Amino acid sequence: MALDARIETAIAAALRLGGGGAEAPPRLAAALEYAVTPGGARIRPTILLSVARACGDDRPALADAAAAALELIHCASLVHDDLPCFDDAETRRGKASVHRAYGQPLAVLTGDSLIVLGFEVLARAAEADPRRGLGLVRTLAACTGMPGGICAGQGWESEAQVNLSAYHRAKTGALFVAATQMGALAAGQDPEPWEDLGARIGEAFQVADDLRDALGDERSLGKPAGQDAAHARPNAIAEYGVLGAVRRLQDILGGAISSIPHCPGEAALAALVQRYAERMVPVIPAGVQG
Amino acid sequence: MALDARIETAIAAALRLGGGGAEAPPRLAAALEYAVTPGGARIRPTILLSVARACGDDRPALADAAAAALELIHCASLVHDDLPCFDDAETRRGKASVHRAYGQPLAVLTGDSLIVLGFEVLARAAEADPRRGLGLVRTLAACTGMPGGICAGQGWESEAQVNLSAYHRAKTGALFVAATQMGALAAGQDPEPWEDLGARIGEAFQVADDLRDALGDERSLGKPAGQDAAHARPNAIAEYGVLGAVRRLQDILGGAISSIPHCPGEAALAALVQRYAERMVPVIPAGVQG
Repeated sequence: MALDARIETAIAAALRLGGGGAEAPPRLAAALEYAVTPGGARIRPTILLSVARACGDDRPALADAAAAALELIHCASLVHDDLPCFDDAETRRGKASVHRAYGQPLAVLTGDSLIVLGFEVLARAAEADPRRGLGLVRTLAACTGMPGGICAGQGWESEAQVNLSAYHRAKTGALFVAATQMGALAAGQDPEPWEDLGARIGEAFQVADDLRDALGDERSLGKPAGQDAAHARPNAIAEYGVLGAVRRLQDILGGAISSIPHCPGEAALAALVQRYAERMVPVIPAGVQG
Repeated sequence: MALDARIETAIAAALRLGGGGAEAPPRLAAALEYAVTPGGARIRPTILLSVARACGDDRPALADAAAAALELIHCASLVHDDLPCFDDAETRRGKASVHRAYGQPLAVLTGDSLIVLGFEVLARAAEADPRRGLGLVRTLAACTGMPGGICAGQGWESEAQVNLSAYHRAKTGALFVAATQMGALAAGQDPEPWEDLGARIGEAFQVADDLRDALGDERSLGKPAGQDAAHARPNAIAEYGVLGAVRRLQDILGGAISSIPHCPGEAALAALVQRYAERMVPVIPAGVQG
């Protein structure tokens, strides 16, 4: 099965698990589905399954569950980040944000429920290999919570003094490190050599996101542009300028490809990162100065 | 070691795991500790460890981790329930609620981080017995998220039509069922016979909480009283009257004690529930009519 079909099938199964039955409050169940479908590019689970394939993918059901779990956590973070007390975003992926569509109480609970569902999906899929399952739970937790996951990353935005490298590693890098490491773990391989690839892809996405935000590309963002400047958030454009940020993005992507560990699927994985790279590096509008 | 010492030691270890190091945003780390210590009665982890003891407690480190994980999830639910979009509570356990002390962004992230930390603590403690660990992760997830956990319970409060039995089972019962079942699981026993005890204790706590809320006992609640009537929430006093609710509470507690499965520690566990019962049944002020 193609990776995108595997991902959507696994996510649909997770939503049935979380929302099904007469015992569930129906609006919260609807909000879970609204927050997760239709998806964005599903980049994190695609990387996860690509690494699992590169490592032999000997337990595809576990890899699929890991991919779904990671995407659920990512979607949870979007729902909470959009809340009025954070970004106060009216739109996400081209439609009303969850709190605009369902109200704040259900938006808070949607994020909470998706986090929990991520761990539940992993635990249920791991019956055949509890040791791998526990490794996946640990890795997902480390990349989601405190002290180094996306919660920590968002938490840095409430500090007067920011540790910038810790902030970026946690805020954007963590879930990409989870993607590469969980892909390796699901296939029974040592996750450690895969950390570097995840960290570099995460760094590239951060720079690409900053560029799209600065260039005002609301359509491809699916959310309001110009937010970094509006919220005075540290970003690559403030640091390097637009043209400098583009050069930095190209450097990072080159480093990411050369960091791929030796494995049977190395070439296919390099091709995947190259495809992402071509999409990520923006066409700079005429007249933009570095 | 006494149960309360085991619980506080395990919670302190969890907080070191979640908040430690220069990589963590310090205010969020402080908020995690603020939300969890000093604790309330630690009733859920006490029940969990009591059941584990009654079942032989052959892996005490795993039982301790399960107790800490369950209390972290409970504390997370209190932080989110206190948010302005839910109860808008100014105080909790006799001090300012987390969002009053640290602001809403960090209160949302504190709840999120404590949920994740609960699963991480379980996964780390389960190295020696991955199969038990996965069972614990599954049970904790089921009692926390959708469709039947405390998130679902809170979600029912956003519905026009409420399934009252599902609401109560999820909102209060779920974490007590988690307590008894996780105690059994941590000790390697079948959790299924322990569900009934957890459900009955949960029902008793719901009625006792409704009574304290109605009788205006803000001191022992550690939070504002009269909230059920103020928010028109379904409650036992509206259903049975004060004296009827007291009788119902006594009936439930009697049923809870007789539901304890046969096991080596049965008598000690019955004594524990009896002690809770004596604390739970309130002294009715003179002049209160049923």
